[in-house]
Amino acid sequence: MEGVDNVESKECYMAAYSRDGVPSSDHLKFRIVSLSLAVDSIPDDHIAIRSLWISVDPYLRSRMTGVEEDGLNVTQFPINQVIVSYGVGKIVKSKDEKYKEGDLVVIAEMPVAEYSVLPSKAVTTKIDPALEVSPSEYLNVLGVPGYAAWVGIQVIGKPKAGENVFISAAAGGVGMIAGQLAKLKGCRVVGSTGSDDKVKLLKEEFGFDEVINYKKEPDLDAALSKYFPNGIDIYFENVGGKTLEAVLNHVNTYARIPLSGMISQYNEVWTEREGVRNLLNMVGKEVHMQGFMLRSYMHLFGDFATEMGGYLKEQKLTSKLKINKGIESFLDSMGSLFTSSNIGKVVIQV
Amino acid sequence: MEGVDNVESKECYMAAYSRDGVPSSDHLKFRIVSLSLAVDSIPDDHIAIRSLWISVDPYLRSRMTGVEEDGLNVTQFPINQVIVSYGVGKIVKSKDEKYKEGDLVVIAEMPVAEYSVLPSKAVTTKIDPALEVSPSEYLNVLGVPGYAAWVGIQVIGKPKAGENVFISAAAGGVGMIAGQLAKLKGCRVVGSTGSDDKVKLLKEEFGFDEVINYKKEPDLDAALSKYFPNGIDIYFENVGGKTLEAVLNHVNTYARIPLSGMISQYNEVWTEREGVRNLLNMVGKEVHMQGFMLRSYMHLFGDFATEMGGYLKEQKLTSKLKINKGIESFLDSMGSLFTSSNIGKVVIQV
Repeated sequence: MEGVDNVESKECYMAAYSRDGVPSSDHLKFRIVSLSLAVDSIPDDHIAIRSLWISVDPYLRSRMTGVEEDGLNVTQFPINQVIVSYGVGKIVKSKDEKYKEGDLVVIAEMPVAEYSVLPSKAVTTKIDPALEVSPSEYLNVLGVPGYAAWVGIQVIGKPKAGENVFISAAAGGVGMIAGQLAKLKGCRVVGSTGSDDKVKLLKEEFGFDEVINYKKEPDLDAALSKYFPNGIDIYFENVGGKTLEAVLNHVNTYARIPLSGMISQYNEVWTEREGVRNLLNMVGKEVHMQGFMLRSYMHLFGDFATEMGGYLKEQKLTSKLKINKGIESFLDSMGSLFTSSNIGKVVIQV
Repeated sequence: MEGVDNVESKECYMAAYSRDGVPSSDHLKFRIVSLSLAVDSIPDDHIAIRSLWISVDPYLRSRMTGVEEDGLNVTQFPINQVIVSYGVGKIVKSKDEKYKEGDLVVIAEMPVAEYSVLPSKAVTTKIDPALEVSPSEYLNVLGVPGYAAWVGIQVIGKPKAGENVFISAAAGGVGMIAGQLAKLKGCRVVGSTGSDDKVKLLKEEFGFDEVINYKKEPDLDAALSKYFPNGIDIYFENVGGKTLEAVLNHVNTYARIPLSGMISQYNEVWTEREGVRNLLNMVGKEVHMQGFMLRSYMHLFGDFATEMGGYLKEQKLTSKLKINKGIESFLDSMGSLFTSSNIGKVVIQV
């Protein structure tokens, strides 16, 4: 297929913004476009790629609301244009001498499309086959979820051996890496998730010390009393709302709460979100709560890649992908992030 | 009176805990005790003092609830015992050679009583008359409110010249010092308060750039849009609840929110407190929210005293006391903190 000059490329575009609830086929639509991959139709310093892997992450939800100044404060996908996500592509044509056909590249804002023509500076990382890391790992431990886990635990959480760490959405893409990273730092790690299968997986394969099935133990306050007799030192926040409120009744003095995201809150306008009533506890317990976006930590990307790449090489980190197939699975893949149907990081194999 | 060996001393004691609302005469009662100040009835390494000034601060409210693990997480005053506060006393008898009769001393946990006998190590600071600072200033700019303002603005807020700073409860003891300190750092400072008199005072005598009268502009969100066209970089939090929620809709990226206290929330059990629904904004704007208690910053007390003492000497800081007279004014003084009846720091002149 790399030799073909004209392709039909399926792509996902933003048809209408979705303020409430999970985006549906009213909001995200698919279309087929014809693309010329002939060398002379590709501008200088551009590349043509075939998408191999596309990362599906919760923050994308916030780019589909049409409201700029809300929540994650990310730019909105323009209406009628193809949406973008973190991805791995294979170069099929290159007008930049740094890249040749067949190279695998990581692209932070890769079109959710089968083929694309992009400026070569859009490439985040060129994958070195000698590293023997699966390309999909660049969307996981070495991608958005791994980086979010590392910034939250290592940079903001500053874990000390023996500390007690709580991870919400622990079987999600970020949570399962964050939990393992905290274990590698010598912490005691408790997660929460929504099924017995996930509880078993997190304990047996990912080394969590304890895992709460919040469907079986709906009184989180009681569960936290049981699993954290010595209180919580670090809470890696993925969920928001009532979970955060329960945690604030169990924090130790000087607790750190890195705010990676609040998945329970993305699908509501803010006035309908769950209020947290016990922030006063942050005063007495001198809690440090810190929101973060990866774009502000790019200066540490090298440290991150070295540390996490090392763990992968030494097989100290286990990773788990939920692989959906084909561009058209994007809509269901997005939706699945907001139910508890997934285990691990959701990716699309194109 | 210093020569007298026996005194009748009026004191305020905790008769019953008060969970909700402002403590009343059911909770705080007064009694007169007889005290021998004869030298041989004072143990070695102890001093007898006559109270001159007593500081009345909002955090004291949290020592009167009977609930240890709530809010400020401070120890509760034992039932039937005299309560304590930050104060200035004059030594009337000394069994420690470091102190002599007539010395003025600052005591962090001074009984709310006319006279007391205390271990001399209870003394926080011996006032040097050569400094020419009024003793009451040790309860204000150089005391709890000044220290809270300094830790919040200087240590946690890390102000840069030109930044936009919002101070709630700006005419309160802490707020009026915090605002002046931020001005001294080159910031633009907007406060909120509850009367036109206070607005005028804060602008004309304390140098605030703008002041919101929240009774005249009850839509705080609209007021913040008007007074912060360029957003908020530092919010010095004294109030909590709906005020914090409104601020979180106006924060700039990397905003800092030192949590000094949440006076709107002390008189409620936590489940009845106002929920903050838009914490998700902390993620996108990468906000740093940090609760603090002065006990964790004592290693910086020297830096604080040097800086703030310097401003006082150079007359760069204006201070304002609301002086109530006599031990028996303690109950009304406490209550007045939770209405907007005061301007400035509340102290009792015994």
